[in-house]
Amino acid sequence: MPRVSQDQLDARRRQILAGARACFARHGYEGATVRRLEEETGLSRGAIFHHFRDKESLFLAVAEDDAAAMVATVAEHGLVQVMRDLLARADEPDQAGWLGTQLEVSRRLRTDPDFTKRWAARSEAIAAATRDRLIRQRDAGVLRADVPVQVLAQFLELAYDGLVLHLAMGRPAVDLEPVLDLAESVVRRQR
Amino acid sequence: MPRVSQDQLDARRRQILAGARACFARHGYEGATVRRLEEETGLSRGAIFHHFRDKESLFLAVAEDDAAAMVATVAEHGLVQVMRDLLARADEPDQAGWLGTQLEVSRRLRTDPDFTKRWAARSEAIAAATRDRLIRQRDAGVLRADVPVQVLAQFLELAYDGLVLHLAMGRPAVDLEPVLDLAESVVRRQR
Repeated sequence: MPRVSQDQLDARRRQILAGARACFARHGYEGATVRRLEEETGLSRGAIFHHFRDKESLFLAVAEDDAAAMVATVAEHGLVQVMRDLLARADEPDQAGWLGTQLEVSRRLRTDPDFTKRWAARSEAIAAATRDRLIRQRDAGVLRADVPVQVLAQFLELAYDGLVLHLAMGRPAVDLEPVLDLAESVVRRQR
Repeated sequence: MPRVSQDQLDARRRQILAGARACFARHGYEGATVRRLEEETGLSRGAIFHHFRDKESLFLAVAEDDAAAMVATVAEHGLVQVMRDLLARADEPDQAGWLGTQLEVSRRLRTDPDFTKRWAARSEAIAAATRDRLIRQRDAGVLRADVPVQVLAQFLELAYDGLVLHLAMGRPAVDLEPVLDLAESVVRRQR
């Protein structure tokens, strides 16, 4: 039996995640059947579920990929930049679909403690990165000082959540740039 | 055959809407079967669908009830007050459930033009009330003048959407009061 290298395993995993993301985006969480996941990834169910325990794990792995990318962007450019990136890709139909899938699981987040716990780790990493960056900005003197950092962080997260809901519902993204400018100005040191 | 008065018809309609709201909140849009709608309303399917064409119409009627109440609150106290009211009722499990149901239909809003049109009328009424109130505030000199009213209105709507997503996902509502204070201060005339 030929040995499969780590590179090959990693490439296979990325192939599955990309196909799964497109599949969830197009068909929703419930609609992403195993047959459709096979079609979108180009792999058999055996190959897919060799890498991921079940559909829920696959979904959470795609979301964790997003979270890791978000944490990196937040650390370097802030949460508003993540929002600007979402806005720039608003024309891609799969983006709204994928965001919509995340809304679809909202009931699960209220009723399934195990799922909630796995999702919370993802949210907490983003929240922590947001707070850390704001603290660095405060120390550099560019952040407003009259509102606690925690409140500013929650404010940016609220705006981010609002943008996710807005885009997931297919509402127009045009004209939202000045709204993000305004949200960004809120956390800056006031003139 | 006894004549049914308009009052009786209206009371019956309200009874159906209240039961349907609880049913959607508890079971989600897909999970709110006709049998469960019968149980929650205490009425037969014949009685329910005498008043509403189908489940979608029933769902949109509950959402329209919300929208009418929101438009009234926005006109008198502003969209931030609507958010404060949501926050005050965050402990009621049915509230998060009902908000979650609205997220559940997000895919429909991207893929079903008829549904989208019926939902858009509801969103537009709230947006118009928000703009109208901000214009009155601007004329009264309490609104900041350096940002167009349209941008301020979209900013408040983004915060509202963010709160809906936050609560629908069952995330903690505690500590959000200062975040709403901050959002409200953004649209006010700056010191």
